[in-house]
Amino acid sequence: MMKLYYTPMTCALSVHIALEESGADYETQKINFANNEQRSPEFLAINPKGRVPVLVTDQGTLTETPAMLAYIAQKFPAAKLAPLDDLFKFAEVQSVNSYLCSTVHVAHAHRVRGIRWADDEQAHESMKKKAPQNMADSCKLIEEQILKGPYIMGNDFSISDIYLNTICRWLASDNVEISDYPNLNAHFQLVSERPAVKKIIALHQ
Amino acid sequence: MMKLYYTPMTCALSVHIALEESGADYETQKINFANNEQRSPEFLAINPKGRVPVLVTDQGTLTETPAMLAYIAQKFPAAKLAPLDDLFKFAEVQSVNSYLCSTVHVAHAHRVRGIRWADDEQAHESMKKKAPQNMADSCKLIEEQILKGPYIMGNDFSISDIYLNTICRWLASDNVEISDYPNLNAHFQLVSERPAVKKIIALHQ
Repeated sequence: MMKLYYTPMTCALSVHIALEESGADYETQKINFANNEQRSPEFLAINPKGRVPVLVTDQGTLTETPAMLAYIAQKFPAAKLAPLDDLFKFAEVQSVNSYLCSTVHVAHAHRVRGIRWADDEQAHESMKKKAPQNMADSCKLIEEQILKGPYIMGNDFSISDIYLNTICRWLASDNVEISDYPNLNAHFQLVSERPAVKKIIALHQ
Repeated sequence: MMKLYYTPMTCALSVHIALEESGADYETQKINFANNEQRSPEFLAINPKGRVPVLVTDQGTLTETPAMLAYIAQKFPAAKLAPLDDLFKFAEVQSVNSYLCSTVHVAHAHRVRGIRWADDEQAHESMKKKAPQNMADSCKLIEEQILKGPYIMGNDFSISDIYLNTICRWLASDNVEISDYPNLNAHFQLVSERPAVKKIIALHQ
């Protein structure tokens, strides 16, 4: 059985939802950031990066959200979580996931985890100040260029929709008003209505 | 025929090498950062993100390095650029690519492109100062946890090796001495000896 290590409302939420959507048999363990549990020797033995999510499978341990999402989609093809029969469309899904991970999540992290990239507080304040604009720029790009509608890939739901839905839950804390982006807002509402999303969100409260 | 838009020695180098390794029929166009060509209306019409690399295919346009690398590996399976027959191993390759993209490339970018995440020069200086340590930490993690040897995945060469080789070419500019990491250094030398790597590196000088 697979096991997901997660911290509520982090990007691990997306992997948790994907597991639920996939129909996989899985268990979970919560990692408490408030206790700095992700830096405990026990957790570092599972993931030396000291981050969540982590997915332990029968074949070994996976880290990095886009890799886990694609793995779940490929492992459980009946759930139709990615366009596995069309290499180009699969690459488009992966492109969205890579953008969410390396640009949008990183932009958000500058508001809350500037300590990763600078040691002085003034620099952290400066990063905090710019983060909302970077998140707004990303929302505009997603609204105008990425989101085909109603789902990211058009009519077909995918792991990218789950990942975007998770990141959109951080926007209010970044002072970005999702209703300023009508397509993105409609996407957020649509995906949030899915039973698997509702079920897992309730567990992350 | 596919067309790659690239700027020399950026992460586009990895996609260029992967295309060469794949045996694909492709053409290229150089984008000149010195002229800010990536922000020209002509290029923004191709990629609204204003970044390289961009891969134009018969089915449409792809952005984001990890997505392009996996696409090339899947599209040209005879080149054996990824473990396509083993979902878990493929996910491991994707995990490495995601880490290189969202952590290592991002760490490097703080030395040269701090303007993305803060508006004041003091913050940019602070980021520049910390970037070498972050790159060194990444090298240590790759050396000790990720690189199975001689290739990342063990005996089988993959797109992750190409991507890591590209990023290692930035280490000297980040004040990181690759010879401090003997496994990583051996990997760098091994991959650099490949004919496709030598050929494309010569074009990027």
